[in-house]
Amino acid sequence: MYKAIIFDVYGTIFDMESLKNDMDQFNEVEAKSISQLWRKTQLEHMFLRQVMQRYIPFDELTKESLRYVLDVHEIQYNREDVNQLFDAFLDLDYFKEIPKVLSELNAKNLEIGVLSNANDNMLMPLVDNSEINKYIDTVISVNEIKQYKPSPASYALILKYYQMTREDILFVSSNAWDVSGAANFGFDTVWVNRSKSYFDYNGQSPTMTVNNLNEMVKWLEMNKR
Amino acid sequence: MYKAIIFDVYGTIFDMESLKNDMDQFNEVEAKSISQLWRKTQLEHMFLRQVMQRYIPFDELTKESLRYVLDVHEIQYNREDVNQLFDAFLDLDYFKEIPKVLSELNAKNLEIGVLSNANDNMLMPLVDNSEINKYIDTVISVNEIKQYKPSPASYALILKYYQMTREDILFVSSNAWDVSGAANFGFDTVWVNRSKSYFDYNGQSPTMTVNNLNEMVKWLEMNKR
Repeated sequence: MYKAIIFDVYGTIFDMESLKNDMDQFNEVEAKSISQLWRKTQLEHMFLRQVMQRYIPFDELTKESLRYVLDVHEIQYNREDVNQLFDAFLDLDYFKEIPKVLSELNAKNLEIGVLSNANDNMLMPLVDNSEINKYIDTVISVNEIKQYKPSPASYALILKYYQMTREDILFVSSNAWDVSGAANFGFDTVWVNRSKSYFDYNGQSPTMTVNNLNEMVKWLEMNKR
Repeated sequence: MYKAIIFDVYGTIFDMESLKNDMDQFNEVEAKSISQLWRKTQLEHMFLRQVMQRYIPFDELTKESLRYVLDVHEIQYNREDVNQLFDAFLDLDYFKEIPKVLSELNAKNLEIGVLSNANDNMLMPLVDNSEINKYIDTVISVNEIKQYKPSPASYALILKYYQMTREDILFVSSNAWDVSGAANFGFDTVWVNRSKSYFDYNGQSPTMTVNNLNEMVKWLEMNKR
């Protein structure tokens, strides 16, 4: 039986589709296009900065990505516009099953943590100040070591906070690259495949694939190893 | 004045749009969709494998990416199908200005090399056995150190082959991430912006931006520093 369940944040607990909801200045089509390219660019910058060994905190990286996205959309902007749009990242909606699922995991005496590439400026408003924070023991940011997921060093941070062996940890993410990274480090993993996609195999497969987190709770109950 | 011009291969010398030309078994729309997602997935896998510290040779990585792309397109395949489609990567078209440009650079007594993430299995048929090979002094593959671009170590390989200082080298790429990586290492860079895109700024800007390589030759002639 696992002792701790560690969740990814963006896309796993919080719905990235809600990023477009705080963009009233754009029409629906434009807001969707901006939010999707923003997330895609943010991920690319993250991986590339890790490869180039040029870490910058996630809030800065997120704003840098946004400027490119606004350029591509031929939208004029100043610093204030960027800061105002950035706030959309601090006000995402969690998936509706999350409070129930975390509460059920708490009841099983499992530790619950999150590991995110975001820094505290972004995690505090989103996680710490949200109503689901009461279910979460530990909020871990890679900013502590300045190495982004999916680097091995980022997942090693979990073992620093939890005095456990790798076998005690279950890592949960909707992002195939994050599942690959955690599995590569040696954790069992759950891939939350909400959009019924194909897993983008890159050397590692998830221990378990589920369509939502309720299914994960059921799987845990069936597999009390 | 620079002493050596080092080119990226895919997208810079060879046209990635020609990837779809060897896919007769699919219709035009499908071939385009497959070739675009294939290249996108190949790049993602490359960056992620570098971050996860799990290098595999580029031909294997290219086939692994292809399997995901065929899954997404709901296309059944066996090993032979993958190998046959993979051959499209060994038969790309170079941009029409390439022979003239390389010949002009040769006439200026500039050394000409390429640095690629591909391994010899892919570079030999594409570069060494092509008619443009006579203009190229050195074909460098990151497979020698098993670290993909844009890692600093990959660009350092250039200095191993050319006994020059960083200031002597001009690095040329159509890929913004590659320009960023080379500039991050300390080379002057040219971004070949054939599609009139915005540069995806990620900490570094190109020394010069041109729309094609003829423009680069003109720029070199105007800037004999």
